[in-house]
Amino acid sequence: MINKLVENIKKTKAPIVVGLDPMLAYVPERVQKKAFQEYGETLEGAAEAIWQFNKAIVDQTYDLIPAVKPQIAMYEQFGIPGLAAFKKTVDYCKEKGLVVIGDIKRGDIGSTSAAYAVGHLGRVQVGSRSYAPFDEDFATVNPYLGSDGVNPFLKICGEEKKGIFVLVKTSNPSSGEFQDQLIDGKPLYELVGEKVAAWGEELMGEEYSYVGAVVGATYPEMGKILRKIMPKAYILVPGYGAQGGKGKDLAHFFNEDGLGAIVNSSRGIIAAYKQEQYAKYGEEAFAKASRAAVEDMIADIRGAVKLG
Amino acid sequence: MINKLVENIKKTKAPIVVGLDPMLAYVPERVQKKAFQEYGETLEGAAEAIWQFNKAIVDQTYDLIPAVKPQIAMYEQFGIPGLAAFKKTVDYCKEKGLVVIGDIKRGDIGSTSAAYAVGHLGRVQVGSRSYAPFDEDFATVNPYLGSDGVNPFLKICGEEKKGIFVLVKTSNPSSGEFQDQLIDGKPLYELVGEKVAAWGEELMGEEYSYVGAVVGATYPEMGKILRKIMPKAYILVPGYGAQGGKGKDLAHFFNEDGLGAIVNSSRGIIAAYKQEQYAKYGEEAFAKASRAAVEDMIADIRGAVKLG
Repeated sequence: MINKLVENIKKTKAPIVVGLDPMLAYVPERVQKKAFQEYGETLEGAAEAIWQFNKAIVDQTYDLIPAVKPQIAMYEQFGIPGLAAFKKTVDYCKEKGLVVIGDIKRGDIGSTSAAYAVGHLGRVQVGSRSYAPFDEDFATVNPYLGSDGVNPFLKICGEEKKGIFVLVKTSNPSSGEFQDQLIDGKPLYELVGEKVAAWGEELMGEEYSYVGAVVGATYPEMGKILRKIMPKAYILVPGYGAQGGKGKDLAHFFNEDGLGAIVNSSRGIIAAYKQEQYAKYGEEAFAKASRAAVEDMIADIRGAVKLG
Repeated sequence: MINKLVENIKKTKAPIVVGLDPMLAYVPERVQKKAFQEYGETLEGAAEAIWQFNKAIVDQTYDLIPAVKPQIAMYEQFGIPGLAAFKKTVDYCKEKGLVVIGDIKRGDIGSTSAAYAVGHLGRVQVGSRSYAPFDEDFATVNPYLGSDGVNPFLKICGEEKKGIFVLVKTSNPSSGEFQDQLIDGKPLYELVGEKVAAWGEELMGEEYSYVGAVVGATYPEMGKILRKIMPKAYILVPGYGAQGGKGKDLAHFFNEDGLGAIVNSSRGIIAAYKQEQYAKYGEEAFAKASRAAVEDMIADIRGAVKLG
């Protein structure tokens, strides 16, 4: 799947990923109303509203982008119906040829981590049959529990030719509380980065490994160091746009081949119509505003990074 | 909810929690067959099988125990139907008067962590109505992202009088890879423990805080130190039984009041009938084997710890 991701990026010349993290507050009144008319003001109604919202945005942007990253928390908050909308979104995006990164940040140990890996990237056995329950292409993984938590994902990635992005240095202001702590003079995130490189060695695609990393756009200097520590890891870069990261901060995350990083924007794209810059589209054309925001983001990155 | 947990523990004199982590392989042939007859060898069939398995075990043990801890990964691996069985299990256990600890190990940032907190412990707004999607009493939380990831949970815990258990030192063999790394001579897990104590200060129940910690039974010496660092945090102790922790290792996790810790066993209880010691019950009486295993676990802990 890393090969397909790289191929999609080369084809679109757009190393970006659209974060499908729908809040109900982002969904235009008209779309909400229609969903509530059909399902009432219920969890099912909310799930229908965010699904229709996602679908419109994907329909308007899929030809420009290589990948999407649905954030499962935004669906899980609406319980079972919300998770059904997550699954619908994953399936629809794959039909459109997009690579789907499930932003699930799971991480546990042994058979429990294996259950997450099976549920999201693999197949689960039921009697004589097997099923791929969520079937994303990639998943994000939390490393706090060490190799015991990551190995079950590696196993499934090898079997299914899928991939993971391990949290290394997250984009949020307090990420340093634990991640920046110095261990023999070296911050924890570097230690995690070294592990990512090691975990990825046995799982190489054509140019990059199945094992990638998450490093926030808000920390470009750390990105520069981590780029060198993990030369074969694709870096998923959150924190662009709404969180403050700019195009010029991104150069450090890429390799000299112009590859190696994929930059996420969520709110900045999916709620573009709420920003002054795209207000002219109005609520009615919210998905067109998202398309314009994608085009602007691509232009910003192409201006700042020499792409492969 | 911490008050109810403490009250339940005092009432049962059993500081234990049964981990409802059903693997399909634990579910007796007969139960699987019945579920598959009704739903086919489908995800729905698997979900029905684990739900019936759980229900039988809860029916046989609820009068002896204060709490259960369903591990969501084991349900999530069966997709949407599996998660519906998780929700059914949560609701059923609450009906039986048990405190439910959702072992979800979620952790993200800002609005995303808030979505997890709302989905599992709080209420989500849909138009003019609100819903409690999963509605566990406690949830486990991963601290790797720092305060930004934990604060949204604290907010909801305050509003709903619920609680969290933050991963501090996990029970698995490789937990030391990152958690034991020394920062100015102090291991990372102590630093996290100090944060847990600080996060919990503003959220005090009668005797203990809404903010607890996870510390593995497999590391009793570290438990001793963490007990002192977080005197008001309930410690959820996994790793007993199948993972190798013994009753005598547990004394360090308790306070002098005989409270402050609750010990989890999953496989050791729910798959007891597969162990030589309880083989006499046979597959047919699997739930009675679980009851006997609960009784033995309580006796082992009562023999090792002076309870309050």
